[in-house]
Amino acid sequence: MLHVPNNSYFESLRDLLSHLEKIGKLRKITKQVDKDWEIACITRQVMYQRPDDRYALLFENIAGFKTPVATNTLGASRDIYATALGVPFVDGRIDKEAVRTKWTKALSAPIPPVVVKTGPCKENIMRGNDINLLKFPIPTWTPGLDAGAYLSAGAVIQKDPETGIQNAGVYRGMIKGPNRIGILVQPAKHSGVIMQKYEAANKPMPIAIAIGSPPYLGMTSVGRVPYGVDEMAVAGGLGGQPMEVVKCETVDLMVPAHAEMIIEGIVQPHFREQEGPFGEFYGHMGPIAQSPVIEVTAITYRNGTIHQGFQEQMPPSEGSCIKDIAMESILLTGLRQCGIPGVLDVYVHPMSCQSHVVVKIKPQFPSHAKAVYSGCWAVYPNRAKQVTVVEDDCDIYNDDDVTWHVSTRVQPDRDYTVWEKGTGLPLDPSMPKEMAIYSGKVGIDATRKHAYPPRSMPPRELMQTVQDQWSDYGLPALT
Amino acid sequence: MLHVPNNSYFESLRDLLSHLEKIGKLRKITKQVDKDWEIACITRQVMYQRPDDRYALLFENIAGFKTPVATNTLGASRDIYATALGVPFVDGRIDKEAVRTKWTKALSAPIPPVVVKTGPCKENIMRGNDINLLKFPIPTWTPGLDAGAYLSAGAVIQKDPETGIQNAGVYRGMIKGPNRIGILVQPAKHSGVIMQKYEAANKPMPIAIAIGSPPYLGMTSVGRVPYGVDEMAVAGGLGGQPMEVVKCETVDLMVPAHAEMIIEGIVQPHFREQEGPFGEFYGHMGPIAQSPVIEVTAITYRNGTIHQGFQEQMPPSEGSCIKDIAMESILLTGLRQCGIPGVLDVYVHPMSCQSHVVVKIKPQFPSHAKAVYSGCWAVYPNRAKQVTVVEDDCDIYNDDDVTWHVSTRVQPDRDYTVWEKGTGLPLDPSMPKEMAIYSGKVGIDATRKHAYPPRSMPPRELMQTVQDQWSDYGLPALT
Repeated sequence: MLHVPNNSYFESLRDLLSHLEKIGKLRKITKQVDKDWEIACITRQVMYQRPDDRYALLFENIAGFKTPVATNTLGASRDIYATALGVPFVDGRIDKEAVRTKWTKALSAPIPPVVVKTGPCKENIMRGNDINLLKFPIPTWTPGLDAGAYLSAGAVIQKDPETGIQNAGVYRGMIKGPNRIGILVQPAKHSGVIMQKYEAANKPMPIAIAIGSPPYLGMTSVGRVPYGVDEMAVAGGLGGQPMEVVKCETVDLMVPAHAEMIIEGIVQPHFREQEGPFGEFYGHMGPIAQSPVIEVTAITYRNGTIHQGFQEQMPPSEGSCIKDIAMESILLTGLRQCGIPGVLDVYVHPMSCQSHVVVKIKPQFPSHAKAVYSGCWAVYPNRAKQVTVVEDDCDIYNDDDVTWHVSTRVQPDRDYTVWEKGTGLPLDPSMPKEMAIYSGKVGIDATRKHAYPPRSMPPRELMQTVQDQWSDYGLPALT
Repeated sequence: MLHVPNNSYFESLRDLLSHLEKIGKLRKITKQVDKDWEIACITRQVMYQRPDDRYALLFENIAGFKTPVATNTLGASRDIYATALGVPFVDGRIDKEAVRTKWTKALSAPIPPVVVKTGPCKENIMRGNDINLLKFPIPTWTPGLDAGAYLSAGAVIQKDPETGIQNAGVYRGMIKGPNRIGILVQPAKHSGVIMQKYEAANKPMPIAIAIGSPPYLGMTSVGRVPYGVDEMAVAGGLGGQPMEVVKCETVDLMVPAHAEMIIEGIVQPHFREQEGPFGEFYGHMGPIAQSPVIEVTAITYRNGTIHQGFQEQMPPSEGSCIKDIAMESILLTGLRQCGIPGVLDVYVHPMSCQSHVVVKIKPQFPSHAKAVYSGCWAVYPNRAKQVTVVEDDCDIYNDDDVTWHVSTRVQPDRDYTVWEKGTGLPLDPSMPKEMAIYSGKVGIDATRKHAYPPRSMPPRELMQTVQDQWSDYGLPALT
């Protein structure tokens, strides 16, 4: 992959796409495809490639529609994610530390959005009877199993009626007709907290969905940013400059000026309707839910609008990638803000559905690892079912190295901490549905508890000598 | 890799080497190398390549010696192991089931060796003052840390003085002089059981070390074959025909006629001497031990003898690969012989130092998984610190798939079984040295305990359609 200059800033999704194309990481498909199965299947096949071989996709020719669809744009791989963040490559590798630095800076010093009068997202406006969601190629993500076409990458924007602070989160949105969207709102999520306030006052809730926003909002709206912190401000921090926002046409909400599309609407209090099933990120179908419904009051969109979708469902997926990195960054920042010393990095296993977390520390006091589990379960109570704590000699991005650390540093009876009845995520299929509000947790202390002999490895300099003169041995090049 | 005909039989190590060369899986190094660091470093660099890119090595030009050294010959990868077993490739992949079938057949119907009058291993004989181990390029495996050069691939052969049944195991052997070898004998191992019998009778123990045996003996002598079963007979079963053995010159033991070298000797009872440190397979230096000493009474060897070494030390290594596959096969057979139904396959993680075992079952009764852990700890009491049980929809050779199964099917408080003070392996560094005869164990039940919704995946046939017409999309070929 080409060198990406540091601090690239992408004002819009299409800016990012043209950059990805320039570095060979966007592929355009001109062959006609069906939005209801082919987009999902092609995107998934790309995700089955090795991370280095994955790319973003732009489907330009969708049967029955004029609008193209983009997938894999933010999280086909950690490298693409870093590219979207403007993090440079060092010796052909992304600088993971720089991704973390951007995130921790953004969380500790968010940059609030700046209001502008108008923006590209207003280039076209549908109101009243003109409103027609069905004009756009919103994909079906689990062909044959999902209840229908779903919005999967829209940042759902609400405002806390008490504080006036906006929240942005990505929640599944089922297309129920030209102007109706069923939206999954879970009580433990920030969207649920806000909706409860409107319902307590028996008032309709204004809502907006921003699709194809500047990449930073996609990155922050999939994470559990602390309640009361505006994801748009964290996105500003990530991008290094305030995001430009405009006022909606029909509701009192501020939305990204450079989004590809804004759907505005109202949610009536206490109204629920069947929504789902939908293929969820645990790799299983999420159940049918009784969910609130958005009555769409306007759709505004750019000329040549691009529909953006995140594939989730069975990992590996773009959705998992961007959620994992957000979770890692929020955990890292949160653990430090808890006052736990020596926390160096956090990794979420891409196939673990955010259940398996590895934390790298420099141990500084007895049972330091237990403080780390506690911190994880405080910051992310409904994920991180398994937290493994390793020392700073572990490459936490290398599953093999983590396995070796656990194998050689753990005595299960001494080093496992099993907790009962922590907070669960109702989509986790390992609990029977009626109990899934709870979840057990396990912490694994894979740090050393006594002095160890040296590793049984040749000295580094001898390994290097052999590597330096490798061609003299007449052997195939090392990879 | 080329197709390997089924049921190839390799009478000797050199037969196997010429076959590996034919299929591009042996590389000869003609550049002069140092036996005390370069062999270890080059072999390790090859093991750091992806399994498909690894190969066996023959060092033909060793500074100061005429004898070549072979490494990575049996276990550079699972494919090379299967090749050495004569298992065919199906669609470019090894038939894992065939490896298992050969092993389970060999364990349940061993083929005892057949005695022949003489064999190639007698082509040259050193006796008395001619004996000189230092004439052969026995490598140092952990340069700078090992106590010296070590035999690492020799099958150490002893005979139970009560039953007359021979035992063969691979134990580290430190070269202490022209005719002295320090040999690590651990009480819980079969070698220790036999030695205790000689020591109880205060008698010297005859011993032989076969180096560069037919591949089947290398494969069986690294596993915990049930006590009282002759590893040479299991090797006969693996090869599908009896191994030819000859009588030693100076001790009453039978050894492989086609071995590259036989070292014969005597171990005096109750004599111990400092031996080690040696880089062990847990990836750390094994401690200095007070070990018995072999007084060499004869060395017999083939014309153009080849010295064979197994690299162990930090995984991944050839030693781990062959031990893992032996352990998997012995566990699979043992679990079935325990009468546990529905046991389909067993996998040992290559970086786990035989600590992490995954067992695939078709669950048939409540807590079936717990019977499986129990079986593992019965058959392999001093390994398998972590046993994960999954269902038959899991690809246990794919770590990502195992992680997904654990993530989505396990509730730690419900599904973890932690046992205290099981049997340990003293080399496991996770226990303080004085306690390492014990080890905790954990069993993880990653089977489903209730009905699950369908997986959130497109139907197989749609994925296939997309794959079939992939070239039409203008995308890079799938790998």
